[in-house]
Amino acid sequence: MSMESRPRAAELGIPAGQFARGVENAITDVPGIRVGHSTVQTERLSTGVTAIVPDALGPDRKSIPAGLSVGNGYGKLVGVSQLCELGSIETPVLLTSTLSAFRVADALVAYMLEQPGHETTTTLNPVVGETNDGFLSDIRSRPVGEAEVRAALAAADTGPVAEGGVGAGTGTVALGYKGGIGTASRIVGVGATEYTVGAIVQSNYTGTLQLAGVPIPAAEVLPGEPAETIGNSCMIVVATDAPLDARQLRRLANRAVFALRGTGSDFAQGSGDYAISVSVGTGAPPSDDDLSPAFLATMEAVEEALVNSVLRAETRVGFEGRTAHAVPIAEVRRRLARAGIGADSLLSR
Amino acid sequence: MSMESRPRAAELGIPAGQFARGVENAITDVPGIRVGHSTVQTERLSTGVTAIVPDALGPDRKSIPAGLSVGNGYGKLVGVSQLCELGSIETPVLLTSTLSAFRVADALVAYMLEQPGHETTTTLNPVVGETNDGFLSDIRSRPVGEAEVRAALAAADTGPVAEGGVGAGTGTVALGYKGGIGTASRIVGVGATEYTVGAIVQSNYTGTLQLAGVPIPAAEVLPGEPAETIGNSCMIVVATDAPLDARQLRRLANRAVFALRGTGSDFAQGSGDYAISVSVGTGAPPSDDDLSPAFLATMEAVEEALVNSVLRAETRVGFEGRTAHAVPIAEVRRRLARAGIGADSLLSR
Amino acid sequence: MSMESRPRAAELGIPAGQFARGVENAITDVPGIRVGHSTVQTERLSTGVTAIVPDALGPDRKSIPAGLSVGNGYGKLVGVSQLCELGSIETPVLLTSTLSAFRVADALVAYMLEQPGHETTTTLNPVVGETNDGFLSDIRSRPVGEAEVRAALAAADTGPVAEGGVGAGTGTVALGYKGGIGTASRIVGVGATEYTVGAIVQSNYTGTLQLAGVPIPAAEVLPGEPAETIGNSCMIVVATDAPLDARQLRRLANRAVFALRGTGSDFAQGSGDYAISVSVGTGAPPSDDDLSPAFLATMEAVEEALVNSVLRAETRVGFEGRTAHAVPIAEVRRRLARAGIGADSLLSR
Amino acid sequence: MSMESRPRAAELGIPAGQFARGVENAITDVPGIRVGHSTVQTERLSTGVTAIVPDALGPDRKSIPAGLSVGNGYGKLVGVSQLCELGSIETPVLLTSTLSAFRVADALVAYMLEQPGHETTTTLNPVVGETNDGFLSDIRSRPVGEAEVRAALAAADTGPVAEGGVGAGTGTVALGYKGGIGTASRIVGVGATEYTVGAIVQSNYTGTLQLAGVPIPAAEVLPGEPAETIGNSCMIVVATDAPLDARQLRRLANRAVFALRGTGSDFAQGSGDYAISVSVGTGAPPSDDDLSPAFLATMEAVEEALVNSVLRAETRVGFEGRTAHAVPIAEVRRRLARAGIGADSLLSR
Repeated sequence: MSMESRPRAAELGIPAGQFARGVENAITDVPGIRVGHSTVQTERLSTGVTAIVPDALGPDRKSIPAGLSVGNGYGKLVGVSQLCELGSIETPVLLTSTLSAFRVADALVAYMLEQPGHETTTTLNPVVGETNDGFLSDIRSRPVGEAEVRAALAAADTGPVAEGGVGAGTGTVALGYKGGIGTASRIVGVGATEYTVGAIVQSNYTGTLQLAGVPIPAAEVLPGEPAETIGNSCMIVVATDAPLDARQLRRLANRAVFALRGTGSDFAQGSGDYAISVSVGTGAPPSDDDLSPAFLATMEAVEEALVNSVLRAETRVGFEGRTAHAVPIAEVRRRLARAGIGADSLLSR
Repeated sequence: MSMESRPRAAELGIPAGQFARGVENAITDVPGIRVGHSTVQTERLSTGVTAIVPDALGPDRKSIPAGLSVGNGYGKLVGVSQLCELGSIETPVLLTSTLSAFRVADALVAYMLEQPGHETTTTLNPVVGETNDGFLSDIRSRPVGEAEVRAALAAADTGPVAEGGVGAGTGTVALGYKGGIGTASRIVGVGATEYTVGAIVQSNYTGTLQLAGVPIPAAEVLPGEPAETIGNSCMIVVATDAPLDARQLRRLANRAVFALRGTGSDFAQGSGDYAISVSVGTGAPPSDDDLSPAFLATMEAVEEALVNSVLRAETRVGFEGRTAHAVPIAEVRRRLARAGIGADSLLSR
Repeated sequence: MSMESRPRAAELGIPAGQFARGVENAITDVPGIRVGHSTVQTERLSTGVTAIVPDALGPDRKSIPAGLSVGNGYGKLVGVSQLCELGSIETPVLLTSTLSAFRVADALVAYMLEQPGHETTTTLNPVVGETNDGFLSDIRSRPVGEAEVRAALAAADTGPVAEGGVGAGTGTVALGYKGGIGTASRIVGVGATEYTVGAIVQSNYTGTLQLAGVPIPAAEVLPGEPAETIGNSCMIVVATDAPLDARQLRRLANRAVFALRGTGSDFAQGSGDYAISVSVGTGAPPSDDDLSPAFLATMEAVEEALVNSVLRAETRVGFEGRTAHAVPIAEVRRRLARAGIGADSLLSR
Repeated sequence: MSMESRPRAAELGIPAGQFARGVENAITDVPGIRVGHSTVQTERLSTGVTAIVPDALGPDRKSIPAGLSVGNGYGKLVGVSQLCELGSIETPVLLTSTLSAFRVADALVAYMLEQPGHETTTTLNPVVGETNDGFLSDIRSRPVGEAEVRAALAAADTGPVAEGGVGAGTGTVALGYKGGIGTASRIVGVGATEYTVGAIVQSNYTGTLQLAGVPIPAAEVLPGEPAETIGNSCMIVVATDAPLDARQLRRLANRAVFALRGTGSDFAQGSGDYAISVSVGTGAPPSDDDLSPAFLATMEAVEEALVNSVLRAETRVGFEGRTAHAVPIAEVRRRLARAGIGADSLLSR
């Protein structure tokens, strides 16, 4: 099955919700946000790095406002306390494999110290998220390091974002299926101004897949065993050009975590579920009274990013011959149609 | 329309999920948890008090373990910091109307000081949650006080729990419909032992109602204007006889908040969304490794309690003639059937 | 001993530290901050209310930025979660007696609903702190209510602030001595601009009094038994005209809590130690890089406010004949002089 | 000046406080706690690793209860969110240099995966603290890695602990003087049982040194410029054999942070001030009512550990010829004597 044949949620006719999708329907719709992947695929390895790069960070602006929400803190997210204390990030956000997170953070420090404006820097807070790709990858070998970090950062670009089993999503599994990277965006008014909210996820969690409320349980749908998620987790990054301050971004990040339930997460105890939100906007923060649309748009974008991460992921056979199956698109279409959703539906909603 | 004709979720054929419902499918299935309502209904007033009373609190045991999750802290929940510091509650949990929360807390202190074992007490932490019933009730008159508090506490009983527009839910509206009190429970294994997890909610939030994933938007379904939620919020109380400690109860409470999204909450910025969890169990806490079923059971119970709060609530005309319509059960049945859910469905799932 | 004869720290020659004191050396040095006391003194009662009133709150500005630090959360502080979620306060901050905190909050709501701009308000977050004055006062009678709240608000004024056993400090004891209300201020540069940081405290905590590092243990110094602090606690309010945002104010509030140790607090487990910080400034927040002086100034002001609360408090005989002794000023002078501090000292430092 | 000639606080006659010191007056007085240093000293480098190893961690017990307090979160502490979510640590705690923290964490993962019981481990939460030793060391070269980590772990032993400029304290400066590693312990009753509370610190913070309340300002005392603390911070680790649970350990850790003020910290905004507390005890947790002595003992131990870290540190000339001077012991004795403290004092206290 070729990658092109796997549709995104929008292509299945799943409604956007209250807010319109952005041009690419990706986090890169937020001005100045680039994404790059570095993918490691061998017989033993299914892993990689995904870099979310805010161009706003540079010699003239050493940090941008950020917020963090910890849905379930069973994870190794690097950079937590400084992000919260200062309400900002100083580096791109990297996503990777659990046991490689620290060498990825180390490589990110090395990279940053070489950047213009960091000639005399002696302190730096790298932000690195991770989920456990040990079902499909030899995670104990800690295979991700400096080369992959630099490759992902070098590849970071605007425009469409590859989804599914790429970058940090190469080896992850979600809701019994192959998971991975997903992204989406929404256009939303905050006060009198229109902004973009974009989300990108590294999906690796348990539960029962829900598409627009329609359950697609892996145990019912798949021929064999659903993929087991080892140390299940979900990393979410949300970006916006609305000039939210750190406190407001934390409120936004909370909604990103809540959205996991909308796609069927069971929020298992071993999960590291985090959302990091950043703003590349400038100017005075909006009134909190104007934030409700941005909160709902965040949930819509995150839910669709999560769904896209599963829809776009192809079946992969990995470490020790274990297989994570792609969600069967035909069955998805059939179930959506039965619920009156999508082009195949005979029902109007 | 008589109250009896309004079904609970289970009676509509909505599946319980992974875990079985308790005998009453109510928080009172948790041994030693009683619930009492005091309802105030006049032309100007639609308000009241709901008391959740753990019998474990008494002369021999002045506090029981408790956890708190703040989904959105735009609320006046009384008792927050001591609950978190000590990981316990010392009083029943009362729910009421926003601007009356403080006189209700004062009345709860008065009541507690009279109880056996409190003859010399000089410090006490009342726990009082609230949501804003100002759409249907003259909230500025702060109509709830000592009489209603004592009535709710006196009425607290085991067995079935009245739902919908009663007690603290008399004047609340949810998802465009009349909301109110709802409850549900699940039986779940934690390690080798079976326990009960029960939830009760005071629903007063915005968004789009979802029943088992099926959207029932008030704007589509209702003849007139959907009810506007003023200062929307949702208070959730979860109880269990599993002997969780305070930290584990906080983890449980987090899931109770996440469950709001499963019923269509938009987590608007003006919402006070809180979950308080308590344990009446004794003995050593279980391993965290055994908590995932309890987490999922909590979400199932809370989601069903939220749904029950809307299904069971009858239309009410309140302050200044404003009306909150009950969700039309026939339309609910029709939509569920179309999605293959319930007795009316022609489809098997 | 007349009140006039009891010196403040500055009058004892205790150095200000790195930053200069304000004109009144009081929280009222912050422009637009007024303070009012209502004092209740009978044979059975030693209690009251202290109101900290920011003039910035009014019809045109319904909230001002605020931060909270919880040193030890064994207290009943009202208004916690909304203060943190929105990073702001909507009402004056009232301090009072533990078991009266809720009727004081209720009275504050009543008062606010009458204010211009609140004609249609249906939600409001009163902020009321408390400590336990049960050693000297019949706390179980919950003697503080609407009359005292309105009196304290009506009395709120700029200029010098009465300290010691007045208002909410009438019945409190600290470090074995009579405690109460204390205040101090510092002038500090944040970036290129000079601002004022002012603190006011309601001292009611245990430990060993330290003045400028010199221990003055009550057990050594007092003829009889040191006063026992029941449910010991300390409420601290810090105000500034520096335009800090909520996150920065939380950082400031943390320092206010840390300062308790500088005066000898033992941070006992039963203590409710909180600091609330507010900004009445306007304009863009300063860089965090410029905050260190404000942090140190806060600690200096809080430490001196704590010391002033004890120095200025006169001996009081209260409920059931219990006595809280004033710290003996002559002995204080003697010990300071021995350490080379103050006018009586023969040593230069 | 030989290391032997530099006294610890106890040898200067500084009183222990309310609680007695342990045998070694070190964190190693807590049964089963070992400490090891790896020191890197070259012309360019003054850095290293300090390992705090709880023997309780092993094949039979993969985690022990732990708590965290963040005084000021401007630091890179690794392992934050999982420590808080699960209330436990899974690895020894390592302290090191800021920019090397991630490769140290990576090396700790490598080491742990080799340990018995970790043959199939695919997730692990290393805990690594750091402070910035860039004043004396070429921090940008990230000189600490696997060799130093393994050396520190291999060197971990019971008994006396080397203090001052060793291990992770080799390059740190505190309060204008050379700082480094310090330790102390106290014996304290919790309920009816006696336990040990031990503390170890990596001191690297700004402010004005206070010994038993006596100020020893570097700017007054030193001939040249006081050492400038770059990215100042303080890491504190507290251990006890009292069987506290995670929530109680967090309360303990809070006191460890508060204690920084007792030694003159100015809690500057750029500081990463953290306390991690662990319990190696077993059995039911004590009542919170019994914790106040443990809280005070923690503050006494931490304050003395901080003071020891400065007293024991020798002058060091480091990177780019910068010098951090040891606090002059003779001047310390003189000032203490003047305040009536120590063997040289003519005054009794």
